[in-house]
Amino acid sequence: MSTRENPTISLVGAGPGDVELISVKGLNRLKKAKVVLYDALVNEELLTYAPTAKKIFVGKRLGFKAYEQEQINQLMVDSAIEFGHVVRLKGGDSFVFGRGMEEILFAREHQIPTEVIPGISSSISVPALAEIPVTHRGISNSFLVLSATLADGSLNPELEKARELNATIVILMGIAQLPKIVELYQLANKGEIPVSIIYNGSLETQKEVFGTIDTIVAQNEQASASGPGVIVIGEVVSLASNYQAKVYSESSSSCCI
Amino acid sequence: MSTRENPTISLVGAGPGDVELISVKGLNRLKKAKVVLYDALVNEELLTYAPTAKKIFVGKRLGFKAYEQEQINQLMVDSAIEFGHVVRLKGGDSFVFGRGMEEILFAREHQIPTEVIPGISSSISVPALAEIPVTHRGISNSFLVLSATLADGSLNPELEKARELNATIVILMGIAQLPKIVELYQLANKGEIPVSIIYNGSLETQKEVFGTIDTIVAQNEQASASGPGVIVIGEVVSLASNYQAKVYSESSSSCCI
Repeated sequence: MSTRENPTISLVGAGPGDVELISVKGLNRLKKAKVVLYDALVNEELLTYAPTAKKIFVGKRLGFKAYEQEQINQLMVDSAIEFGHVVRLKGGDSFVFGRGMEEILFAREHQIPTEVIPGISSSISVPALAEIPVTHRGISNSFLVLSATLADGSLNPELEKARELNATIVILMGIAQLPKIVELYQLANKGEIPVSIIYNGSLETQKEVFGTIDTIVAQNEQASASGPGVIVIGEVVSLASNYQAKVYSESSSSCCI
Repeated sequence: MSTRENPTISLVGAGPGDVELISVKGLNRLKKAKVVLYDALVNEELLTYAPTAKKIFVGKRLGFKAYEQEQINQLMVDSAIEFGHVVRLKGGDSFVFGRGMEEILFAREHQIPTEVIPGISSSISVPALAEIPVTHRGISNSFLVLSATLADGSLNPELEKARELNATIVILMGIAQLPKIVELYQLANKGEIPVSIIYNGSLETQKEVFGTIDTIVAQNEQASASGPGVIVIGEVVSLASNYQAKVYSESSSSCCI
């Protein structure tokens, strides 16, 4: 006689960091989970909504990986078979560089039913929280989201094509590559384009750096911010009130952002 | 003696349609709103969470606009001054073709404090709910989101550049332009690329159409679906189990999606 639930996996996007930016549905699933597997970018306060669930950290911290992707896949499936309902909780949205589909495919191979509960992706929401709209009538009718590097560590070759688009460019995991990205744009004489880097978007520690292609490396060093950062390149950046404050204050000695 | 609240505007993204895909924070704001201005793509069930608020429909239905954008801006600001807290509720995310920033800029001009509460954008979540990840290791390291037409009704010229990217292409408000989009891809001998159209994403009525550039127009006609649709072009489409079911069933007479 078994009281076990049927195995099932909910892939839940936790949003950009602010606990309240998870979806109502995602939070409901969390409350009923038997096991929660969570990543480094997930706000751990969310785990308090699953007080009786088994909680396993499977992320990467300080360069140290708790688990390889294959191990996460296996742990997720094993947990579902043993305990029933597993919530796989990821930062942002599971399908925006979250390797979510790899987990779905693995679960599918093992005949474990899955459901996807989308999250608020940092790629759109973090700029938004800095008052940068990825689209704006008359300025930008498209936006491209890309990772700065490929899985092998090389610079994403799409960056060169990105430069030629009349689109807002949003770069994730790109801070280390900032000088190379800037160089690419400068080679095409695009040094004037507004740029912002937003660190720790949606959290109390959110910090915004504003500049242009030509100035952003220096502005970023001066800001000496840390944490995950989203880079936004495009004219829409100039709509943010903090960008405007910065531009208008640049002729004076005060630096205030 | 006045008991009025200070005027303030919360721009809230309601998500793709499923009531539970609003953020916890968005729902909390809705519960406290004095006035709610909502669009056509917002699930009206959400309004039940604001039982005492004044609710005003400002969207477009059957080609009829209740208000012009300038009128919405003014109504929003006037409502905040008269009643206090206004929730401006939009489908998806307010900054993805939502004209959200125009409203923020107008409020800023009138010294009304605003806050942005991001929503789950249809551009990422609707594909996700059809099991199409906009990024997937080894297949797609970037995705471009664009509207099929510009404000003046002409085809978005970025579509031609989009075709040359190794990116997942997500097209919003594009169903009417489908034949033109297909033609663009065919001119570049890209007829084999997988395509999906997802109608009414996240709702009970969600319907998915799968095909390739060469077949999607016919598949779409055959499906005779209606409602707002998201077009996804790229190899990631082939990961969806319904795409695979379709491809494997194509040699047989049964059509089953």
